[in-house]
Amino acid sequence: MSEFRKDPVSDHWVILAPNRALRPEQFAAEAGRRALKRCPFCRGHESDTPEAVATYGDRGQAGDGGQWQVRVVPNLYPALTRHDQLPATAPSLYEVGIGYGVHEVIIEAPDHVLSFGELDDLQAELVFVAFRDRLRRLRANPQIAYGQLFKNSGPAAGASLEHTHSQLIGTPIVPTQIQAELSRAQTYFERHGRCVFCEMMDVESSSGARIVAENEAFLAFCPFASQFPYEVWVLPRKHHCSFDMAEDGETRDLARLVRDLVRGVEVVLHDPAFNFLIHTSPFRLSPVSYFHWHLEFFPRLTNTAGFEWGAGDYINTVSPEDAAGKLRASCNVT
Amino acid sequence: MSEFRKDPVSDHWVILAPNRALRPEQFAAEAGRRALKRCPFCRGHESDTPEAVATYGDRGQAGDGGQWQVRVVPNLYPALTRHDQLPATAPSLYEVGIGYGVHEVIIEAPDHVLSFGELDDLQAELVFVAFRDRLRRLRANPQIAYGQLFKNSGPAAGASLEHTHSQLIGTPIVPTQIQAELSRAQTYFERHGRCVFCEMMDVESSSGARIVAENEAFLAFCPFASQFPYEVWVLPRKHHCSFDMAEDGETRDLARLVRDLVRGVEVVLHDPAFNFLIHTSPFRLSPVSYFHWHLEFFPRLTNTAGFEWGAGDYINTVSPEDAAGKLRASCNVT
Repeated sequence: MSEFRKDPVSDHWVILAPNRALRPEQFAAEAGRRALKRCPFCRGHESDTPEAVATYGDRGQAGDGGQWQVRVVPNLYPALTRHDQLPATAPSLYEVGIGYGVHEVIIEAPDHVLSFGELDDLQAELVFVAFRDRLRRLRANPQIAYGQLFKNSGPAAGASLEHTHSQLIGTPIVPTQIQAELSRAQTYFERHGRCVFCEMMDVESSSGARIVAENEAFLAFCPFASQFPYEVWVLPRKHHCSFDMAEDGETRDLARLVRDLVRGVEVVLHDPAFNFLIHTSPFRLSPVSYFHWHLEFFPRLTNTAGFEWGAGDYINTVSPEDAAGKLRASCNVT
Repeated sequence: MSEFRKDPVSDHWVILAPNRALRPEQFAAEAGRRALKRCPFCRGHESDTPEAVATYGDRGQAGDGGQWQVRVVPNLYPALTRHDQLPATAPSLYEVGIGYGVHEVIIEAPDHVLSFGELDDLQAELVFVAFRDRLRRLRANPQIAYGQLFKNSGPAAGASLEHTHSQLIGTPIVPTQIQAELSRAQTYFERHGRCVFCEMMDVESSSGARIVAENEAFLAFCPFASQFPYEVWVLPRKHHCSFDMAEDGETRDLARLVRDLVRGVEVVLHDPAFNFLIHTSPFRLSPVSYFHWHLEFFPRLTNTAGFEWGAGDYINTVSPEDAAGKLRASCNVT
């Protein structure tokens, strides 16, 4: 039912997915959305979702009947599906594409936990192991060019269910923002002979003013040109373009750092809605020297307004130096 | 107090404006924001804002003491100001700029009117006359490269005050999104020998499927690749790159069409928050054959989520053909 559309001016791909309008709403009712009777993500309610494509942390039995700790299911209201579609007929002025793709939900706990910050070390690590594993599986599909991992937490961040979860959308195209980051990182590499993200870590480490947290494998800081108040980027110290190539020690360190970051942000900013997402290189491109996978985190404190949508630029009322100072005091990374 | 910042990867300009965090909040309290005692935009409360830089529709006396119908004031909590600032000291990795600029508020009615849709023909026209006039004044400032006109209506659209108003931000840089549209429009022109927006109007007129409203001077349609549900673009039939060169008949036709569009949207979608903004060519560039000024309108029905922020692409659950059908029935453009 979905299709890709692009116009010659705005340059963003649009996934037209009318089917997703049917998904139920657990938070304050959006116009015309169905309310939900019970949480489909809790253990014991497995029949409320499509059958799991993977489970993690099973003790004893495997699969949906087992004692799963993290469960991955196809999204019941997907933006894209594996069913081939004929492309829309469209005037030649516009670009269209088949709405082929993968849309999975990573259920991050068997109990009705509301925040990623509430997970213990092992559970948080299992979530990132699942992220990496599902991305690896996606890489094996030759029709998929990119896998976008992301979390929406809270209705202001676009979540429709409150049980802590993340999502993975695999697309046949390389998304606009990834293409743009790759292009600029490549230009930087060609001019300076170095990965721009590695350079950024050096600059931030030696300044220290914007550092939020760090551990053996990762550095977290508020970027110099933060688009949003309290935006945080988490970069692996070891240069690699692809998250799905992360080592076990890295997924463990990342899981704990992000969990502690969420906890710190919830204290400092009073449980805000937030998003995080992982930028990694397109499957067919990697490995490349000029790109460096990373995680971007931002609380949703303000609504993006007309200036931002019109200009494509951002007004941020909190300096990243101030934001980092406040978060640093509250993120006791373990 | 403001500064421009850009990092080498994200490619968006950020205006860092800590002063704007001090502005009071008329809607549901945002964390740490002051509540407002009385509406600073109502006639009789002129002393609550900086002195007017222009008034329109005065009957009898002119200026702040007069019977103004539309009043333009400097924003009390500006994103940018005319006071020169030294640029931030920054590592060479990052781009910085002086936070110079202009930030004005266009108060669209003397009474406490909540929606642009409530204005009568004359009042709506005065608003667009003020838009054009303020943009013309901005063009005379050699330090300003671009003027972004925009409206935030409702808290979900980024408004902090409910009295109907719009804003104009003049920047020393050409915004990222404008630069990108210009570049693609130029490419199209070089390949096809024609303005892409003129071509789009021809395509949409002959299809008809996405037309929302039209009058002598303007065509309004849901773009083929609408990023948001019920997004509408309004294009002048007469090719021109700059809104501030619009003729009197055009401002009148545009004002009425947009007013009727807002009324129609408020009926169909139950008074949603919305934004509109005007894309026009940078002052020093115009006139150019390849760009075509236009107005973009979108209700704020959903929250942009992690996929959109990560991918830079959009999931839209309402097809523009369906949206246009519903809006067409309710927008009786006069």
